[in-house]
Amino acid sequence: MKQWIVFEGGEGSGKTTLMAALEEHLVSRGMDVLCTREPGGVPIAEAIRRIILDPQNKELDPIAEALLFAASRRQHLVEKVLPALKEGKMVLMDRFVDSSLAYQGHAREIGLDEVRRINALATQGHMPDVVFLLDIEPIKGLERIRADRDSLNRLDLETMRFHEKVREGYHLLARENPNMIVLNAQKSVEELLHEILETLFP
Amino acid sequence: MKQWIVFEGGEGSGKTTLMAALEEHLVSRGMDVLCTREPGGVPIAEAIRRIILDPQNKELDPIAEALLFAASRRQHLVEKVLPALKEGKMVLMDRFVDSSLAYQGHAREIGLDEVRRINALATQGHMPDVVFLLDIEPIKGLERIRADRDSLNRLDLETMRFHEKVREGYHLLARENPNMIVLNAQKSVEELLHEILETLFP
Repeated sequence: MKQWIVFEGGEGSGKTTLMAALEEHLVSRGMDVLCTREPGGVPIAEAIRRIILDPQNKELDPIAEALLFAASRRQHLVEKVLPALKEGKMVLMDRFVDSSLAYQGHAREIGLDEVRRINALATQGHMPDVVFLLDIEPIKGLERIRADRDSLNRLDLETMRFHEKVREGYHLLARENPNMIVLNAQKSVEELLHEILETLFP
Repeated sequence: MKQWIVFEGGEGSGKTTLMAALEEHLVSRGMDVLCTREPGGVPIAEAIRRIILDPQNKELDPIAEALLFAASRRQHLVEKVLPALKEGKMVLMDRFVDSSLAYQGHAREIGLDEVRRINALATQGHMPDVVFLLDIEPIKGLERIRADRDSLNRLDLETMRFHEKVREGYHLLARENPNMIVLNAQKSVEELLHEILETLFP
């Protein structure tokens, strides 16, 4: 039985909508579900995130940032995710280790191996049963989240290249990881939910 | 030439006094000296330390704590220590990686290898030229910092055992690391300074 499910994907890939639909379905089946995303309301993890996201912290070194993400992940895992799994809950998570690998390891070029090592310490071998990658061309994902065409036009080439690299990173990970299922994020929520349920309850 | 010098040791081992004496001596020789300790006034490193030290954060997981220490160390290193070394300054540092190894890796029992791996990422191979370990029996070190005998008596056995384990950890490290010089912290400042200068300027 697949109990711990992670959703991954670039901006505008539709993770939130799909997770809500899956949660609703699972609850209607009488299942106990925890739907969470880092830092997940865990105060220590929130405090760590504030440092990462504080626009004043321009000097934040990329390796220090990766260590902070891992620390925040560890705390959310220990305080919230592992207890929920122990209680037998289904856990749906918006992003996990693969986000750090795709965004920081690959796109920001810290290196997959380095980011993997930091996260191996943070997770201590606790890994989700399945990861659904909502795959979409960055230009299409970004169009979705920016109804206003003007703001999309203001994205410079550098930003688009970054999102392309994130997608490339995810593809690299999917090739290596049999537990990562690639879904075409342009399909309807109903179709995607159907594919997810076939994986979860074959 | 030994340019980057770290002082290690348990509570009350006299690092601060000795570093001040060494700094004064080096400055009198016309050297440019940076005397620092983590987080060293680097705002991001300070913010990380506040999370570690906040008494409200009782739930802080030991691995998350080790990742936070490494992130703070990385930021202090990148923003302050490496630039000073590049400018040709002598850098005197109160504690570095060996503190994490002795306190968290050995005494807190996270494991030396795990703490070493986290710190290898944080330091990226940048290591001091020499580490002076001020070695002292914990009971004697603690007596030094607590003029008031009553407060020493209030230390429970558990705390003493912890400080013994820290010392044991330092001894393990000294056995493996030829760049770590063990000094008898009960000698006078003058004697210790003399031994240090013999190592620095043979």
